[in-house]
Amino acid sequence: MTHPAANATWIAADWGTTHLRVWAMSASGTVLAEASSDDGMGKLARDDFAPALDALTVDWPRVPVIACGMVGSRQGWTEAPYATVPCPPLPDGLTPAGDRCHIIPGIKQTDPADVMRGEETQIAGFLSLNPKWDGVICLPGTHTKWVHVSADEVVSFQTVMTGDLFAAITGHTVLRHSCDAGWDADGFLQGLDDAISRPERLAARMFSLRAEGLLNGLPDATARARLSGLLIGAELAATKPYWLGQQIAVIGAGTLASLYVTALGAQSAPATQVNADRATLAGLTAAHRRWKDQS
Amino acid sequence: MTHPAANATWIAADWGTTHLRVWAMSASGTVLAEASSDDGMGKLARDDFAPALDALTVDWPRVPVIACGMVGSRQGWTEAPYATVPCPPLPDGLTPAGDRCHIIPGIKQTDPADVMRGEETQIAGFLSLNPKWDGVICLPGTHTKWVHVSADEVVSFQTVMTGDLFAAITGHTVLRHSCDAGWDADGFLQGLDDAISRPERLAARMFSLRAEGLLNGLPDATARARLSGLLIGAELAATKPYWLGQQIAVIGAGTLASLYVTALGAQSAPATQVNADRATLAGLTAAHRRWKDQS
Repeated sequence: MTHPAANATWIAADWGTTHLRVWAMSASGTVLAEASSDDGMGKLARDDFAPALDALTVDWPRVPVIACGMVGSRQGWTEAPYATVPCPPLPDGLTPAGDRCHIIPGIKQTDPADVMRGEETQIAGFLSLNPKWDGVICLPGTHTKWVHVSADEVVSFQTVMTGDLFAAITGHTVLRHSCDAGWDADGFLQGLDDAISRPERLAARMFSLRAEGLLNGLPDATARARLSGLLIGAELAATKPYWLGQQIAVIGAGTLASLYVTALGAQSAPATQVNADRATLAGLTAAHRRWKDQS
Repeated sequence: MTHPAANATWIAADWGTTHLRVWAMSASGTVLAEASSDDGMGKLARDDFAPALDALTVDWPRVPVIACGMVGSRQGWTEAPYATVPCPPLPDGLTPAGDRCHIIPGIKQTDPADVMRGEETQIAGFLSLNPKWDGVICLPGTHTKWVHVSADEVVSFQTVMTGDLFAAITGHTVLRHSCDAGWDADGFLQGLDDAISRPERLAARMFSLRAEGLLNGLPDATARARLSGLLIGAELAATKPYWLGQQIAVIGAGTLASLYVTALGAQSAPATQVNADRATLAGLTAAHRRWKDQS
């Protein structure tokens, strides 16, 4: 029996801090096989990258690899220098790593200082699926990106570390006793409304979640959802110059992306939710096409 | 040779989450000896409290103990029920624990929900040293308290978990790579100004510290001080209804209390810095005097 990846002509790789995901791609752009591992950039030394890639694709043809993400950071396999905004999400030139891998550069902004790696590929994929789209793309995650796109270029962007903060607060402050698990959709909307209507009061809201648990038996699920609402509300307050009056797309995995769409909707800012995997793969495909045309 | 604590008639105890501190007190209110250990409430089971106290005071006379702090919480030795605002910082009635300890109750507020344990004793001490003082007392710490005091009563208060957040962010988010150590006084003032003048932009400021480190070589000391300034600035923005136009006292240990005095001064809100130990001891002394008069 032939391996499904036998006819792969290239491999698409999304190589982040915690995970490596690969897709065996046909000449016509079909996914023939896929695989993933936890060999993320964060746990690999420089010499570990090539073996990690080979191990995950051992049954596949040894074809060129187009990769995006933290694999191209200073602590990664090979540093792929940042392009600077304003620029297309896929600037010319990939950075070679090993004997067959080609890394997509990240994007930086000088003032205010900001960086992205990996999201540029999702943006490129979204634009290849939606040509001539202008507006603001939100990419929720540990470090959520808000990206102003116009005329097929990234004009400016802003990172907000909401996911990182939520994990640190629920894991390593007194709120770890009050935000253990569960979810309460109304609590989320209440936190959101509190933070957006009075963003200057944010710092005063958090300890109340603990005190309401102690004094009034506030359920963990409500406290957790309200904290999430407070933080995403603070993010929306901070990024209002980005999204207000703009066409908005939210690129992300299910639940988290839905929260952002809900939150924006509550501000009368309707947003379209876009599947993150589809955007990543479309972006890697666009990068591969360009690379083949130029090589 | 007589032990210096031989003439102690009572023991003052500040028993928090992480530490136990005791003072052997003379009948005239002089400190004869002091001791401390890391036998805080957080690491003791109910049956461990009496032995921990006895061990630390083994060379002292076995006299009554007046204690404040988390020792009186639900997870402590014996729960000392909260008094409810408005109330004097030292309401009548201590809660007995073991055969000689008497715990000062904490204070709660129903709406917005809030709690304190330990700070009420410092407030009482401050008021015993400054009779008829009206204004706002700030007690910086892991969970900073802002307390409105009038006519010798606690009228209302607000907890802000700035210290807890700073530790979680510098220890458990991406900023752990950028805020390692050091201090830059100008960076603190810049963060402060950013947060107070545009509190709604707070969420957008934090990741910039990381990006400026990557792109512009922002020193860790500056990033760390700016983060502190951002968080204390956000706290001042949130508590403005408390301190604006009020007489302000900051009760706390050296460095942290100085930061708050500096921060308030930058908002043209001059504050008096008060030594925390002195306030604690004066509060425990006031509680002891009342207890003796009533027993």
